[in-house]
Amino acid sequence: MEIEALSLGQFSFVENAYSFGFAVMAAATLFFWLMRSEIAPAYRLAVTITGLVTAVAAYHYFQIMASWGAAADLTTGEVLATGKPFNQAYRYVDWLLTVPLLLIELILVMRLSRQETIKKSTILGGAAALMIILGYPGEVSDTGGLRFVFWVLSMIPFVFIVYQLVVGLKESIASQPESVKQLVSVSIYLVIGSWLFYPIVYLFPLVGLTGGAAITAVEVGYTIADIVAKAVFGVYIFVIAMRKSKIELEEHDTAAAPAVDESAQASAQDSEHA
Amino acid sequence: MEIEALSLGQFSFVENAYSFGFAVMAAATLFFWLMRSEIAPAYRLAVTITGLVTAVAAYHYFQIMASWGAAADLTTGEVLATGKPFNQAYRYVDWLLTVPLLLIELILVMRLSRQETIKKSTILGGAAALMIILGYPGEVSDTGGLRFVFWVLSMIPFVFIVYQLVVGLKESIASQPESVKQLVSVSIYLVIGSWLFYPIVYLFPLVGLTGGAAITAVEVGYTIADIVAKAVFGVYIFVIAMRKSKIELEEHDTAAAPAVDESAQASAQDSEHA
Repeated sequence: MEIEALSLGQFSFVENAYSFGFAVMAAATLFFWLMRSEIAPAYRLAVTITGLVTAVAAYHYFQIMASWGAAADLTTGEVLATGKPFNQAYRYVDWLLTVPLLLIELILVMRLSRQETIKKSTILGGAAALMIILGYPGEVSDTGGLRFVFWVLSMIPFVFIVYQLVVGLKESIASQPESVKQLVSVSIYLVIGSWLFYPIVYLFPLVGLTGGAAITAVEVGYTIADIVAKAVFGVYIFVIAMRKSKIELEEHDTAAAPAVDESAQASAQDSEHA
Repeated sequence: MEIEALSLGQFSFVENAYSFGFAVMAAATLFFWLMRSEIAPAYRLAVTITGLVTAVAAYHYFQIMASWGAAADLTTGEVLATGKPFNQAYRYVDWLLTVPLLLIELILVMRLSRQETIKKSTILGGAAALMIILGYPGEVSDTGGLRFVFWVLSMIPFVFIVYQLVVGLKESIASQPESVKQLVSVSIYLVIGSWLFYPIVYLFPLVGLTGGAAITAVEVGYTIADIVAKAVFGVYIFVIAMRKSKIELEEHDTAAAPAVDESAQASAQDSEHA
């Protein structure tokens, strides 16, 4: 990346976007972990991981911000390169950890059977890791040809994940309580929608979009996409967990009433999901 | 901003105001989160977000302080510019996150119906975000004309929010318990009162107020307005949550009264609030 292609205004705008990204991710983390105690035990794992995803992202935004600041000297009123390269790979390091985890938090909040949870988490988490690993060599390569080859390779797990989310989870979504069904669907489309940004932006250098405006659009766009896929998506997971906790509490109250043998049934269910 | 327009005394005064702002915001955050467990579960979301607002503000005061310190060299006994620009936009990054959230904490502590809560949070939060976004281009523009245009555009959502708070919430305030009605009204006027400072200060450069005294007044004034709108307002939200928790506890006691055994009553309450 040619940092000198940026105007001072563009450089500052990207810096402010990173700082905003850090603040959102850190605030989201604190929110999820503080509110964790208000959630039924069955959904605390999902909410804990939701906060883990934003915590890891907050750390990486902090590092990206530092790398961005160290790459440029602004003292003359213009953006001059200090020679220290801006480390674009922090994003990949972040995604390698956060993208599998955010798919797992979705599976966990749905509370499928233990077998289904392990199976779907392994498939989706594995495909997500593969997608990120295959994207990296293209990102750091100098030739457009290699960049394109790895784009194609990385798109295979990408399309597989989108298919799994839209088609593979259909039955699981149908089994969700009425009050969260729509929230689960929307959260899935939030992830897919925000992800569409990445493969498009990846191709920018191939079509000659490397000027100051393009760099600004890419960096700010990545930040917005990250905020949607991690913090906003996380709020959806949290609200789903909150509503399902409430349903369980109500069911538990009904079950605890003098009624027949339902309490034994409920506790058998509890131990199954423990 | 021309940092060399400031005397050493003015520069230090602003620096101390930032440090005070950081200390107040950080202390307020710790207070809200430590006291959270003393609040009834129904109001914990409001108090958690209240602490989130001051936490995000504390982070930004820390960044503003660092940027202010890096912009000037004081070693000669005078304020000389180092060339590193002071990043005024941190305030906008902060407001973009905190202003929608502080309106939402007000809605949450009122405990309206789920539908009303979502509706009012979306409208007020969205209008607040729009107001900040429209203010930014004017703040970073070099020409007075653009600054004025974006001031006018930003004032549209500003006036809308004030109207919504004063007129739109009238009915909701009327439905609040007697012991908090006045507190809710005062908290709303605190927000509106502190906000009036921003659009006035925004116009300072247009009327030629750019000297050391004007910069000092603006920076210290912003800090005071921020403290009122976030920390002092937050204390009001906290007191409202505390009083409403007490009312609910009393109502719960009355409802449970028919049974004579008070220890059973207390333990039932414990398990519900656990």
